[in-house]
Amino acid sequence: MDKNIVTIGGGTGLSVLLEGLKKHFTNISAIVTVADDGGSSGRLREELGMLAPGDIRNCLCALSDSEQKKIMNYRFTEGELKGHPLGNIYIAALNAMSDNFFEAVEMMNRLMKTNGEVIPVTNDNINLCAYLSNGDIIWGESSIGKRIGKERIDHIELRPKHAKAVDAAIKKLIDADVIIFGPGSLYTSIIPNLLVDGIVEALRNCSAKKIYVCNIMTQPGETLGYDVYDHLTAIEKHSYEGIMDYIIANDARINGEILKRYEIEGATCVKTNKERFAGVKTNLILGELLSDNPKFLRHNVDNLIEIIKKII
Amino acid sequence: MDKNIVTIGGGTGLSVLLEGLKKHFTNISAIVTVADDGGSSGRLREELGMLAPGDIRNCLCALSDSEQKKIMNYRFTEGELKGHPLGNIYIAALNAMSDNFFEAVEMMNRLMKTNGEVIPVTNDNINLCAYLSNGDIIWGESSIGKRIGKERIDHIELRPKHAKAVDAAIKKLIDADVIIFGPGSLYTSIIPNLLVDGIVEALRNCSAKKIYVCNIMTQPGETLGYDVYDHLTAIEKHSYEGIMDYIIANDARINGEILKRYEIEGATCVKTNKERFAGVKTNLILGELLSDNPKFLRHNVDNLIEIIKKII
Repeated sequence: MDKNIVTIGGGTGLSVLLEGLKKHFTNISAIVTVADDGGSSGRLREELGMLAPGDIRNCLCALSDSEQKKIMNYRFTEGELKGHPLGNIYIAALNAMSDNFFEAVEMMNRLMKTNGEVIPVTNDNINLCAYLSNGDIIWGESSIGKRIGKERIDHIELRPKHAKAVDAAIKKLIDADVIIFGPGSLYTSIIPNLLVDGIVEALRNCSAKKIYVCNIMTQPGETLGYDVYDHLTAIEKHSYEGIMDYIIANDARINGEILKRYEIEGATCVKTNKERFAGVKTNLILGELLSDNPKFLRHNVDNLIEIIKKII
Repeated sequence: MDKNIVTIGGGTGLSVLLEGLKKHFTNISAIVTVADDGGSSGRLREELGMLAPGDIRNCLCALSDSEQKKIMNYRFTEGELKGHPLGNIYIAALNAMSDNFFEAVEMMNRLMKTNGEVIPVTNDNINLCAYLSNGDIIWGESSIGKRIGKERIDHIELRPKHAKAVDAAIKKLIDADVIIFGPGSLYTSIIPNLLVDGIVEALRNCSAKKIYVCNIMTQPGETLGYDVYDHLTAIEKHSYEGIMDYIIANDARINGEILKRYEIEGATCVKTNKERFAGVKTNLILGELLSDNPKFLRHNVDNLIEIIKKII
């Protein structure tokens, strides 16, 4: 199929989806957040004043079948390079040689022969902060995810507050047939993209079908106690009501052993509570979305893509 | 011309020659030393227990015309990566993913679409030590080059004393039509290759014409006071008498201003003293070998290659 597919997000969840999508579609664009400030990305940002390369690298590798895929994902295990994936360092070098981050990522797309295009949502050096419902503010993407308190997030903002979307991202949204949000961390992978000036406007004006793939499990620092509807309204709060045409959620039962392991870390199964969708314009689609992975709760990408194909 | 050209050396001098050779020949192999322990190479060796990537990277870039050439030569200027060329880090990652250093360099040749092949002389983790004529021993390639004392080097050894040449290097020497030694640091770029088990034997048994390109200037820590003949005999001492069929040296006059600058750092023009070549089997060829570079004394590669082509 030659539909124009655009994904919006960042992190592991999105890269798993991209691995699956590339088997079915040829025109895939991944618009990716660049606000991470933890791990290898955080170190490179602090030292080189660049944007976060980690989510970008993950998506580039997901869309690549070249020899470079394995190489760029190689992570150093010793010495001063310990913890850095080679791809992050490579992007850092290209960034230093380029006029802006988008150009560096464009070169990476070419080098890695990606089946599609990975696009950083902005070239502006942004960070996240989360406003909690008690008025507290949490600074930095990695601090939001690692947060232990039970206070709910009220909303997320960028710092500096305004950042400009790269032109290529806007163009891809306008030309899209389908836009898929997630799977991925709600407040640190998906919503940050919506806060970049120009993105929500493009979403409002484009004719693409918009699909949100809800996470299977809650994330303690971000979505403690959230059901599917809470996920949707959090996105709407940072964009506009009725943004999603479809929301896809899991209704397969989760193995008790794995569930227990997740619950120890504060994560629980995202419940659907269908009654909350009464009168809601967004179509709720439930499916058997659990992968066979015996260790981690991941989306069954094949089933997910079957649902997406039916929508299209 | 489709002659099999092999170069032996390391360092900047060799990479300048390779840049020139690739315009004239299609079958070029560069056998390169891996014993450097200074700068970026030294840091990576110490932390990752690998062989020196720096000379290898220089030669890969010299033989490449791809986009990767500029990228791999990019050197970080800030943070913990400061001083590392991207290519050195890239080779470090490939080395960690490969069975041996040769395999990693083989992948680099492919990635960079080198016009020829760069080959590390050995896969064994070696270092250099220099025995001075007063019995002192200097450990490590970088210490030899930076040495200030005036005591002459008696000879160079590897530590551990024995290292095995990679098969590909031996094969290239056996199949070579011409083998070019240098230009480059006598004791730290050229001779280290001769100390690897198998190399001198292959040189003795192969039918290639062997050409030594003598440096234009002496190097304080290595060749203080050496004339052309001293360079030749140092090589012979570490291999065998009569190894070279030709030795090419410069007889163009050097601009007084540049010469003064070099002399401040202890370097002087390498004199020829033709009378010392009386009865010597090696053919001495003198030529106008100075480049137009107004800052550094470098070989005029076009003139050098003209001489080499006439020999072939």
